[in-house]
Amino acid sequence: MEEMASRSRRVMVRRKIMITRTRTRKGEQKEELSVERIFENQEVPSWRNQLTLRAFATWTKLLEKSGLLKQPFTRQENTVIQTCVVASSGIAFSGGFGSYMFGMSEAVAKQSTEHTDAFKNPSLSWMIGFMFVVSFLGLFSVVPLRKVMIIDFKLTYPSGTATAYLINSFHTPAGAKLARKQVRALGKFFSFSFLWGFFQWFYTAGDGCGFAEFPSLGLKAHENKFFFDFSATYVGVGMICPYIINISLLLGGILSWGLMWPLIDTKKGDWYSADLKPSSLHGLQGYKVFISIAMILGDGLYNFFKVLSRTLTALFFQLRGRDATGALPIANRSSPETSRISYDDQRRTQLFLKDQIPTWVAVAGYVAIAAVSTATLPHIFPELKWYYILVLYIFAPGLAFCNAYGCGLTDWSLASTYGTLAIFVIGAWAGAAHGGVLAGLAACGVMMNIVSTASDLSQDFKTGYLTLSSPRSMFVSQLIGTAMGCIISPCVFWLFFKAFKDLGIPGSQYPAPYATLFRNMAILGTDGFSSLPKNCLYLCYGFFGAAILINLIKDALGKKWARFIPNPMAMAIPFYIGPYFAIDMCVGSFILFIWEKIDKAKADAFGPAVASGLICGDGIWTLPGAILALAGVKPPICMKFLSRGTNAKVDALLGS
Amino acid sequence: MEEMASRSRRVMVRRKIMITRTRTRKGEQKEELSVERIFENQEVPSWRNQLTLRAFATWTKLLEKSGLLKQPFTRQENTVIQTCVVASSGIAFSGGFGSYMFGMSEAVAKQSTEHTDAFKNPSLSWMIGFMFVVSFLGLFSVVPLRKVMIIDFKLTYPSGTATAYLINSFHTPAGAKLARKQVRALGKFFSFSFLWGFFQWFYTAGDGCGFAEFPSLGLKAHENKFFFDFSATYVGVGMICPYIINISLLLGGILSWGLMWPLIDTKKGDWYSADLKPSSLHGLQGYKVFISIAMILGDGLYNFFKVLSRTLTALFFQLRGRDATGALPIANRSSPETSRISYDDQRRTQLFLKDQIPTWVAVAGYVAIAAVSTATLPHIFPELKWYYILVLYIFAPGLAFCNAYGCGLTDWSLASTYGTLAIFVIGAWAGAAHGGVLAGLAACGVMMNIVSTASDLSQDFKTGYLTLSSPRSMFVSQLIGTAMGCIISPCVFWLFFKAFKDLGIPGSQYPAPYATLFRNMAILGTDGFSSLPKNCLYLCYGFFGAAILINLIKDALGKKWARFIPNPMAMAIPFYIGPYFAIDMCVGSFILFIWEKIDKAKADAFGPAVASGLICGDGIWTLPGAILALAGVKPPICMKFLSRGTNAKVDALLGS
Repeated sequence: MEEMASRSRRVMVRRKIMITRTRTRKGEQKEELSVERIFENQEVPSWRNQLTLRAFATWTKLLEKSGLLKQPFTRQENTVIQTCVVASSGIAFSGGFGSYMFGMSEAVAKQSTEHTDAFKNPSLSWMIGFMFVVSFLGLFSVVPLRKVMIIDFKLTYPSGTATAYLINSFHTPAGAKLARKQVRALGKFFSFSFLWGFFQWFYTAGDGCGFAEFPSLGLKAHENKFFFDFSATYVGVGMICPYIINISLLLGGILSWGLMWPLIDTKKGDWYSADLKPSSLHGLQGYKVFISIAMILGDGLYNFFKVLSRTLTALFFQLRGRDATGALPIANRSSPETSRISYDDQRRTQLFLKDQIPTWVAVAGYVAIAAVSTATLPHIFPELKWYYILVLYIFAPGLAFCNAYGCGLTDWSLASTYGTLAIFVIGAWAGAAHGGVLAGLAACGVMMNIVSTASDLSQDFKTGYLTLSSPRSMFVSQLIGTAMGCIISPCVFWLFFKAFKDLGIPGSQYPAPYATLFRNMAILGTDGFSSLPKNCLYLCYGFFGAAILINLIKDALGKKWARFIPNPMAMAIPFYIGPYFAIDMCVGSFILFIWEKIDKAKADAFGPAVASGLICGDGIWTLPGAILALAGVKPPICMKFLSRGTNAKVDALLGS
Repeated sequence: MEEMASRSRRVMVRRKIMITRTRTRKGEQKEELSVERIFENQEVPSWRNQLTLRAFATWTKLLEKSGLLKQPFTRQENTVIQTCVVASSGIAFSGGFGSYMFGMSEAVAKQSTEHTDAFKNPSLSWMIGFMFVVSFLGLFSVVPLRKVMIIDFKLTYPSGTATAYLINSFHTPAGAKLARKQVRALGKFFSFSFLWGFFQWFYTAGDGCGFAEFPSLGLKAHENKFFFDFSATYVGVGMICPYIINISLLLGGILSWGLMWPLIDTKKGDWYSADLKPSSLHGLQGYKVFISIAMILGDGLYNFFKVLSRTLTALFFQLRGRDATGALPIANRSSPETSRISYDDQRRTQLFLKDQIPTWVAVAGYVAIAAVSTATLPHIFPELKWYYILVLYIFAPGLAFCNAYGCGLTDWSLASTYGTLAIFVIGAWAGAAHGGVLAGLAACGVMMNIVSTASDLSQDFKTGYLTLSSPRSMFVSQLIGTAMGCIISPCVFWLFFKAFKDLGIPGSQYPAPYATLFRNMAILGTDGFSSLPKNCLYLCYGFFGAAILINLIKDALGKKWARFIPNPMAMAIPFYIGPYFAIDMCVGSFILFIWEKIDKAKADAFGPAVASGLICGDGIWTLPGAILALAGVKPPICMKFLSRGTNAKVDALLGS
């Protein structure tokens, strides 16, 4: 599941970079550390002009060559098109065609021993209908949050930032000397990262092969997921994230995989049965998933309510006439600091706040779609009662906030983790006798769609912020992209489903291990919270409380000390995924730290470009990688890591 | 065998760096790219003052702390002590206690099926005697050559150069800013290289494990020894060697392992029997060894006779009174260029030529020891007739020149290859019936001692040249070191031989695979040249001729074009060893090339320091590595590379 999340993240990066390189106008520039000064002489197109038809056509290069483009293609158009593509392709993941959606099918149901009669086979009509009624909710829930995330919290959204750097680099005017250098640095590390991904591919002939399994800290540490997995993406992400986030991730990893899980593992047979499969939520896996969720919710909800209360307070004063700037009050929090902020930040904030999407539009949209959805969904899944859906939609914005917030901090979208929570809660509520399995899986779909689009589109808003794209044109583009995705993704799945009769059967060409996993979780979920292993719930309460406590301490301390308090959200993410990516990120962080020690000016100027190159190069490698996999080209070599004892056995087998 | 040569080279590097860090005097410096300007204000001690007692005592640090050192320890003393240590430890390799010497023993003889009665068991008395009569010859033969090698040919001797940089760095006065920076660069890469060696160690739990076996160009290429083996040493060596040498090595590697050996392999069963062991000289191995030797001899002897003829011509004119500078005429060849050469070169050449060792001393010493040796050796080995020895001693200086010359170009000492030649020639001459096996092994010992010391001590002379050490004090130090080695090495071997009754038995704690290999070569050698595989001798003639032809062309062309002609000696070295180290060196070369493109001044200033750090760091890691091996600490992990098919089998075995 964590692999899915990771893959989806990377795939997104890949898709994000499927943009078109274009010519740019020449302008006069000043040589300084500002991106927007370079673009100063370029008019920012109005939001309608960013939403051009040509931006949605993929043959821009062709058009350009044919001379049909009189105006140069702008970076805003570029951003808008990639937003549309991301929104569209994101549905392929959140649609769950390899996980919850397919987990409802007869083919997967029959692989299990329980509830083999609870299935709902895929069909083009209901899948497209389902997608349409659930996929736009994330979009509307993220719209009012974007300012909080991007301007107030100044979250990094590393993939979004990297994409923006890439787009800006394509459009950098020829005269900007420093910017040209940055583009070159980006290009160099992009190529390096791409080639590194390609090189790694050759050594991954089997499971557990390759650099991603390198036990760089020893085999014992590797068993507990402590290793450096040579991922250029996460090294780059680590260079973009603040130090405290990287340290929090590592701290969380050490606390969980270094301490708690090994300790809980010693209680095997006492706290939980020793005969369980490692993936069973009744065992150690249960602690991992639910403690992680508890801590994430603690932090996320604390911040959600903090923002909400501030918004309401401000709104209250605004209504009483004390504040009448028109912009959302939250955004004004930073206005006393305006004098101190850079030219780039000023200009970006100004344009980000220019084309407003009124909050009432977002709220009305959300409520309207939720109402339609609540009315429609029980017709598709009779097991999913309307009040389950209502409850889901009440809590969804809070969870969407949590996921978008965590993604902004660490670049991880934990959509499937929230999906697991929905499976468990709704499954338990419905109960096995009343179709809890299908209800759980459907609820999972609803939840995953909301939280996944929320985080993906926040990344896009960050890209838009950094490329001076209008939030309004972004929003429209996201609407179009989502609509496209709601049709394209089910159709592609349908093609596969019809073409391969053994789809999802273990050992066939296209097995669907995650579909089985999700279904098994749903089956477990119907047993309710009582099925959780011993003390799991108490630990969840503890970590939920701890997350809130840490936030309270942080808010109580002055700014000087608050920055040394670890971030609970960041700490919780490796609880479930494992600390390996945190090690990658700390490596990136460490590289940047050393670089800053040696040459601060250079590190500030080129650090983000290098990081963006690393992230995007690795991301784009997944495209040829996926093509190779589809074409059935397999890597030739396995780089394997064996203990000395195992190696002796293997050598005996190989007769060498 | 190639591994032995390589190991010996690295061990030497390690031993070379067992020197003492000392305080240095402060001086006023100019900031420029000259090392000797930095040391300008430091008096160079007279050769007698370089040969101080404290230089030979290893407790310098202690002495220093105790305040007994009134004068600071000089870099010349440092050079002299390391020369002594290298000379002494070099005997451990050239003494052949793991190869030819132990190959004579009963324990090894009985492992074979032929000539089991031809053995001579080790005994302290004859071993020490043997060492004393053969080990000093290399020393005397290299003395008259040192000027040709170091001043005329300007050979690089990468290990010697690296050692000199290290020594200079320890003694750099505090005021020299650029030099301090160089020292820091050296230190950084020294640490990196050491830690890299340490890190690699963990993954070498078995044969064929670890980074040194990384099939970076694919498994097929790895089979033919085309791979990058991540050796920091050879990357560093590649940075010191001229581009044309690195390219020649790669060219030779491609010609031999990429073309010739695969082609000859297709003749298996036609040109030679298909049932042979891969190590048999009757098969492909024979072509590798003898074609390699033929080309090396062609190049080496061409240059030897070129130098000899020039010396004799100059001597002739000198005797007729036309030239009376007193220095050896060869050295004067470069005097017209003096005005163009740098301050460093001037000062180094001046001091290198100051304390002469007259040629007649070297010649007389050589002749005297050869006479004693010729008279004594037949008493130790009755099978080794006095006229065999005489013939060996007539050809030895030429071969010593070849080896020292090749080592200066590429850092490889091919002592065991020359040893193989001696085994073959003398073994064939004596014949199996007249004790050809023992005669061959003994001849191998004589030859290896001469050529190995010749190359080792040339490296030391290079170090001496770069640290302004007097050749005379170096020579005396080498004499002392060699004498120490002649006593210490046999004693250490004797201890092992007495302590471990199963020494050399396969499967025991200390097997001696090379002893068996050398003995088998000697058995094959007694069959004479007729036993060589088909066409091998013709190919040898061809490559011998080609080497001479290439040299003639090079000398005929102007300087402008001559530098593009590959070096036959460098081409021949990978013929036998394989091209992998050439790939390492080309990587180093490529790094330097890119660096020079980016910042020529910086590359020139720091390139040699970085290279020296890489070489010395990796070299010194072998010391703790050897201690770990002796203590029986084995690495925990095997990094293995399997083809996809083999991996599937292994996974089936491991049940995963």
